[in-house]
Amino acid sequence: MKSYRKELWFNIPQRRQLINITGEVEAALRESGIQEGLCLVNAMHISASVFINDDESGLHADFERWLEKLAPEKPHDQYAHNGYEDNADAHLKRTIMGREVTVAVTEGRLDFGPWEQIFYGEFDGKRKKRALIKIIGA
Amino acid sequence: MKSYRKELWFNIPQRRQLINITGEVEAALRESGIQEGLCLVNAMHISASVFINDDESGLHADFERWLEKLAPEKPHDQYAHNGYEDNADAHLKRTIMGREVTVAVTEGRLDFGPWEQIFYGEFDGKRKKRALIKIIGA
Amino acid sequence: MKSYRKELWFNIPQRRQLINITGEVEAALRESGIQEGLCLVNAMHISASVFINDDESGLHADFERWLEKLAPEKPHDQYAHNGYEDNADAHLKRTIMGREVTVAVTEGRLDFGPWEQIFYGEFDGKRKKRALIKIIGA
Repeated sequence: MKSYRKELWFNIPQRRQLINITGEVEAALRESGIQEGLCLVNAMHISASVFINDDESGLHADFERWLEKLAPEKPHDQYAHNGYEDNADAHLKRTIMGREVTVAVTEGRLDFGPWEQIFYGEFDGKRKKRALIKIIGA
Repeated sequence: MKSYRKELWFNIPQRRQLINITGEVEAALRESGIQEGLCLVNAMHISASVFINDDESGLHADFERWLEKLAPEKPHDQYAHNGYEDNADAHLKRTIMGREVTVAVTEGRLDFGPWEQIFYGEFDGKRKKRALIKIIGA
Repeated sequence: MKSYRKELWFNIPQRRQLINITGEVEAALRESGIQEGLCLVNAMHISASVFINDDESGLHADFERWLEKLAPEKPHDQYAHNGYEDNADAHLKRTIMGREVTVAVTEGRLDFGPWEQIFYGEFDGKRKKRALIKIIGA
C-alpha cells in the first residue's frame, strides 16, 4: 500500500470565500503515483470546509446568502462561543458545508462525475490556514 | 491491496425521491471479494446525495418537508444560480444531506448498526444520473 | 494492508450530549499499529453523529440552540415519523452534524490541525448506543 500526504496553505484576505482546489488535488494525485485508492481532502481548521459542488458564481452567491440565513454572522453576541472570539457562525457554516470529502481514485485520476469540483470554503479568513490531502492506494 | 469500482444508474421520473440502495452496495461488495477495507459510495452529480438513515416512510416525508423549509425550491428566481437552470435548491439540499458515505467493510460485510441503510437522494431528477461505489481493501 | 476495528459504547443519561472521543480514537490507533492510512469513525445509530469541531463549552451550547432552531424536538407530532417514536428531530439533527469522519493517519498519529477534536453527538440518548472505529493502512 502506498500513501501520500500534502498540505495546501491559504491566506484569504476576507472573512469568507470559496476557492476551487481541484487542480491542486489532481497535482497531488499525480505526484503520489497512486492508480487505485481513496483520496481524502479535509480542512485542518474547524471554521473552514472542504466540499464538492459546482464552480458557478451564481451558486456561490446563493451559498453565501443561504449560509448567512441558516447561521448568521451578526450580531456576534448571539453566540455563547463569542466571548473572546467572533467566529461561532464559521463553526456552524462549516458544519453545514462539511469538513472533508473522500474521492475515489481510478486509473490514476479523481473519479468524478461531469460537474464535480473540490472547494476550500473559508468562513473565518484573514489568516493562514491549511487543508490536508491524504491519498492511499496502490 | 484490492480495489473494485461500480456505477449505479438512476432515471427517476419525478424531481425528488429517496431510493434505498443498500442491496446494490452489498452486491458490489460480494462481487469485489474484499473482506476488510472501506467502501465509499458517492453521488456523481452535484444535485444529488448519498446518505445513511432509516428506511421509514414517515421519516422520508419529514425529510421532504424539512429540506423544503431549509432550502425551498420555489420561487425559482430567489436564487442567483437559476438563470438558465432551476435547480439551485437541489444543490443546497444535497449539501445538507451530504455527497457521500464511507462504510467499514468487516468479514466481507458492510459493518452496520441495526438500522443503517444507504440511500440515493435525488433532488433534481427526470434524467439519467449516477452514483459511484469504490471499495478498497484486502 | 492492515485493518483494525473497535466499537465504542455509550449510555448517555439525557437525550442530547456531545462527548469528546479523541482519546479513545487515539488509543485504538495505537492498538492497531497502523502508521499510514485512513481512520473512519462513524455512529452506528441513525439518531447520533460523529463529527469534528472545537472542544469549547460555549460553542457546544450554540450547537444545542442552533440545532433546536433548525430541527426542533417539540412538538413531537409535527413529524410524520413520530407515530410510535418521538425522535424524528434526532434523525434531522444527525443529518446536519454528519454520520462519520475520515481522518488521515500519518506516522502513527491522527493527522489533525491545531484544534480538531472528534465528538460523538447523541441526539436520542437514555439507552446503549455505539460508534465504530475502522482503521486501514500499513
